[in-house]
Amino acid sequence: MIIVMKPEATEEDIRRVIQTVESFGFKAHSVPGVSRTGVVITGNQGAIDPSPYADLPGVADCVRITKPYKLVGVDLHREKTVIRIGEAEIGGAEMAMIAGVCAVETYEQTMLTAEVVAEAGCKWFRGGAFKPRTSPYAFQGLAEEGLKILADVRERFGLRIVTEATDEPALDLVEKYADVIQIGTRNMQNFSLLKRAGQARKPVLLKRGMSSTLEEFLLAAEYIMSEGNYQVILCERGVRTFSSHSRFTPDLTVIPEVHRLSHLPIIFDPSHSTGKRDMVIALARAAVAVGSDGLLVDVHPYPERALCDGPQALLFDQFRQLVSEVRAIAQIINH
Amino acid sequence: MIIVMKPEATEEDIRRVIQTVESFGFKAHSVPGVSRTGVVITGNQGAIDPSPYADLPGVADCVRITKPYKLVGVDLHREKTVIRIGEAEIGGAEMAMIAGVCAVETYEQTMLTAEVVAEAGCKWFRGGAFKPRTSPYAFQGLAEEGLKILADVRERFGLRIVTEATDEPALDLVEKYADVIQIGTRNMQNFSLLKRAGQARKPVLLKRGMSSTLEEFLLAAEYIMSEGNYQVILCERGVRTFSSHSRFTPDLTVIPEVHRLSHLPIIFDPSHSTGKRDMVIALARAAVAVGSDGLLVDVHPYPERALCDGPQALLFDQFRQLVSEVRAIAQIINH
Amino acid sequence: MIIVMKPEATEEDIRRVIQTVESFGFKAHSVPGVSRTGVVITGNQGAIDPSPYADLPGVADCVRITKPYKLVGVDLHREKTVIRIGEAEIGGAEMAMIAGVCAVETYEQTMLTAEVVAEAGCKWFRGGAFKPRTSPYAFQGLAEEGLKILADVRERFGLRIVTEATDEPALDLVEKYADVIQIGTRNMQNFSLLKRAGQARKPVLLKRGMSSTLEEFLLAAEYIMSEGNYQVILCERGVRTFSSHSRFTPDLTVIPEVHRLSHLPIIFDPSHSTGKRDMVIALARAAVAVGSDGLLVDVHPYPERALCDGPQALLFDQFRQLVSEVRAIAQIINH
Amino acid sequence: MIIVMKPEATEEDIRRVIQTVESFGFKAHSVPGVSRTGVVITGNQGAIDPSPYADLPGVADCVRITKPYKLVGVDLHREKTVIRIGEAEIGGAEMAMIAGVCAVETYEQTMLTAEVVAEAGCKWFRGGAFKPRTSPYAFQGLAEEGLKILADVRERFGLRIVTEATDEPALDLVEKYADVIQIGTRNMQNFSLLKRAGQARKPVLLKRGMSSTLEEFLLAAEYIMSEGNYQVILCERGVRTFSSHSRFTPDLTVIPEVHRLSHLPIIFDPSHSTGKRDMVIALARAAVAVGSDGLLVDVHPYPERALCDGPQALLFDQFRQLVSEVRAIAQIINH
Repeated sequence: MIIVMKPEATEEDIRRVIQTVESFGFKAHSVPGVSRTGVVITGNQGAIDPSPYADLPGVADCVRITKPYKLVGVDLHREKTVIRIGEAEIGGAEMAMIAGVCAVETYEQTMLTAEVVAEAGCKWFRGGAFKPRTSPYAFQGLAEEGLKILADVRERFGLRIVTEATDEPALDLVEKYADVIQIGTRNMQNFSLLKRAGQARKPVLLKRGMSSTLEEFLLAAEYIMSEGNYQVILCERGVRTFSSHSRFTPDLTVIPEVHRLSHLPIIFDPSHSTGKRDMVIALARAAVAVGSDGLLVDVHPYPERALCDGPQALLFDQFRQLVSEVRAIAQIINH
Repeated sequence: MIIVMKPEATEEDIRRVIQTVESFGFKAHSVPGVSRTGVVITGNQGAIDPSPYADLPGVADCVRITKPYKLVGVDLHREKTVIRIGEAEIGGAEMAMIAGVCAVETYEQTMLTAEVVAEAGCKWFRGGAFKPRTSPYAFQGLAEEGLKILADVRERFGLRIVTEATDEPALDLVEKYADVIQIGTRNMQNFSLLKRAGQARKPVLLKRGMSSTLEEFLLAAEYIMSEGNYQVILCERGVRTFSSHSRFTPDLTVIPEVHRLSHLPIIFDPSHSTGKRDMVIALARAAVAVGSDGLLVDVHPYPERALCDGPQALLFDQFRQLVSEVRAIAQIINH
Repeated sequence: MIIVMKPEATEEDIRRVIQTVESFGFKAHSVPGVSRTGVVITGNQGAIDPSPYADLPGVADCVRITKPYKLVGVDLHREKTVIRIGEAEIGGAEMAMIAGVCAVETYEQTMLTAEVVAEAGCKWFRGGAFKPRTSPYAFQGLAEEGLKILADVRERFGLRIVTEATDEPALDLVEKYADVIQIGTRNMQNFSLLKRAGQARKPVLLKRGMSSTLEEFLLAAEYIMSEGNYQVILCERGVRTFSSHSRFTPDLTVIPEVHRLSHLPIIFDPSHSTGKRDMVIALARAAVAVGSDGLLVDVHPYPERALCDGPQALLFDQFRQLVSEVRAIAQIINH
Repeated sequence: MIIVMKPEATEEDIRRVIQTVESFGFKAHSVPGVSRTGVVITGNQGAIDPSPYADLPGVADCVRITKPYKLVGVDLHREKTVIRIGEAEIGGAEMAMIAGVCAVETYEQTMLTAEVVAEAGCKWFRGGAFKPRTSPYAFQGLAEEGLKILADVRERFGLRIVTEATDEPALDLVEKYADVIQIGTRNMQNFSLLKRAGQARKPVLLKRGMSSTLEEFLLAAEYIMSEGNYQVILCERGVRTFSSHSRFTPDLTVIPEVHRLSHLPIIFDPSHSTGKRDMVIALARAAVAVGSDGLLVDVHPYPERALCDGPQALLFDQFRQLVSEVRAIAQIINH
């Protein structure tokens, strides 16, 4: 951290800052400028709390330099993390297509969809058994019954299951039935749930909060990793902006930035970020072109009867075409 | 809901929309315009899901009309809700000043602050025993030990206690020790926690999510109320915007709008929304001038040593002056 | 427009609304619901102003249905607009790569770059002679001297020139020397400049305002078209959000939405939207995968010495590789 | 500026950074930390451009320290600027109430309103003769005819006139007829217009861009001042956010922050920021409580017939009550 002094700061002000720095066991380096002095702090191991300095007389600003996370960053772990379950991978050479139903509604709807996903050569299946809904009066998912249907999908088609846990009891069940535990956007800073996920023995797919900065997103992953679970997949799902023609504004720049700052894989959810079928296809292609490690896509046999988010679900034919397009794009950018 | 047809929609397209509406037991009213036709749906009781219509051929748009919430709205409950515990009120004639420490750090720090709060004539005390922190390495609160200190504050000064519950085990404890259960901004859509709060016997102070719309905010309150707990206090705490000179951008327009749409009281937290002491004072006055039912303010005996959010805590003298200023402003607008 | 009445609206309230509607020569259709009545207005030709209704007694809300623009929309003009200058096209079968320097700094820098752009098979060159800069103390461009250098680029390499006009005198000059007149993001609602561009005889490339909605963007194009110039190219360049890891957040969803609502071509500027070289490459690929009609890309022979926006300029080798990648992606999505 | 090196940066990388710094005539101070080195630059007079450093090998980040503006800041000019025209003041002891019509529509409408404004003891009148409108089909103002009506207002009631100039020809006329030249939110970065305003002999009221940062806002004022016109009044008018219950989200925190960073007065426009009459009253009170130097308020004799922004215009009685409330609040906070 560098503490920037005001132009009118006195020698005594600077001395007081230096003493405060030293009282925490850090080193202070005074760097005089033409009109202001800066005090650089070194000797710290993690991030420094600016509180003790911000209000000292003569202090204009505290500028942080060190990143506040450790385990998610490339400084300590340079090799890219690859999540592997059997032959299915996320973060490996192949782009991971995680497709399925937004919500598990019936056995038939789920199996019809899973068949199409498997035939398209995908290895992962998504489906919600616990649905976080904005209104208390909306369909909230089939719970354990839904998880059993998903386990049947794995049994029958060999697909690996990704499903959301909305609270700790749900996480206990998801950990038992599924392959990857999803933490939703509304729970990205549900720190108790993150800690519980950090104690799980299965990989965690963490969605970015709809208004979280990249740093907050990485710190949420740090919560999981700091409990000992290093199998974390990040997922961009759009951020909240003034723009209203799509449900959220997908922030694809976060994908190259995560690749630069972290060893964790990052995938993209075009369905929940846009909320509109036509945009799902276009943005899914875009995410692969940007370098996403995978996609999380909603498909539905008859979206007009879907209990949840029908307008964003792809039809089977659209899904098949999307798979072939994104594979071709992935090949171009990996050449 | 009104379904707007495309200019080129055929008679058959319109017939199909009408049939779909009727298949749900609703009534459809076709209203032809110069270049387009609209189909108005009536006969529904709650909000209508646009999914079955949005993708029918010839449909351009689905425009929702009915509000999706019931219990929080003024349609069913016109009289303003007042929260009362003994002599302390929120939503009543007097502006409620809820002041205290951001985090309970020590017995001494808490008691020193409580004494000042009580002497200023306030009836409510705030203090965090469970702290949701962005980094897993930051101070997370004293937990039950902190709650006991807060109970001592009530005992000693007669102040009513407001404190945050970050998960369900914490809520069990908070319900036991405190007077009002606070749900924080990061948990505004933690629906399990909202339901649990809805089963509690004590009032709930619900903070707005940092990027939640007013409708989502009211629906979060609806979650609590739909479980049977009608004692809900809303709290604006700033929203996330591009603007970076304050920690969040306080959205004071939400206060008159809540008064228009809901019978629930709404208060304002100038401390967490701005993050800077000078702004806290200015924005606290502003919120009262706007018609806020109360304030939630951080005070600290020695902010430079605070373990959490020191730069936003008021000094004792600043707090005393603020109390007198906001009382005078409240008098003007209530005349 | 539909006027939604309050549940407690009286018969007289509804009658007054209907009379007001009719006083403007429109038709009013009353549609009673279970708890509320809606009044649908038809007979209007353009958008209806809600002002006369919004404050009448008993009115809860005014919901607009008709789009406020005409000339930009697909309702009146279904065929896609293609901009053609000689052999160069925007909006045609081939993705248009408009590459060049952010600012024309010297003859040598511009020619070196133009040579690389031409050799890569591109037909368009961009370069700024008038630079709108946030600070009055920053380099503001070479003005007419820069335009002459750009005219030399056309002479020597056959590239068509796109360059920004920041005010009306600049537009006079740009119209004289260049092929396409660019209106920048900060001028998207400079209505005088839009009208002047609408009187020009050359195509106009209109950048989206950094916080403009899609409707405002289309209405800005409508300003140009309503003066008689139908040669308009839209350009997405990122919107302002809370997110700070890129300079702006590119909103790629606007591209499929413009294709749905308008006949005008739309391109994407990955350089100014991200501000970082690595993101430029990734997002340029993404935009093509999304269906963008073209790209506007900064290249520089030695970016570390650039007078403007150096960190976002591609190196020559990066540019060549980008051209070949985006061509391959364009082929996949057009198959 | 401080240049933060990557942990793996070599001695040579650091040397190259230092040489680059010195090649610009600045001084470089190397500050080694536990895991990284920082290079602090001093000797610069204005802001440093990070471009030459950002892409050098081994550089992780460039953190700016010096503010990029000079004339608007308190460093060079500590005394608060007060705008004075005759007895009317902005930035002085008394809160300045600038009230009037959104658009000058007729002589009668303007005079009726001016009479009420004058009788309430206000000294300033606002009214638009040139209206920047989102749609080309909306009422654009009476132009010079409107300015003449405003000049009559001054003649008849002694009120000082504030009115917007939307382009340079309009500014020539506004400078001739009015007392204060208003630059609107959509022109905050119309740099040609800012420079022209900087050459005017009358004070300039500069509205904040709807998505401009405080720094951009202050730099826009710097454009005006750098041309020699030091009479600048800043005006907050709401920023664009995801929140949709008000037209814009008023950012009241900018008021104390401007008071901290600049000597210029700052006022608030509750009418355009909220767009709703009830919110106008509430937010106007709030702005005064926050310390605003004045208000810019729309009033209308019969808002339901207004040609522009009717729903935000106050009725005469509301206006009179507002004036008395805000005066009382101003007294409390200045005591």
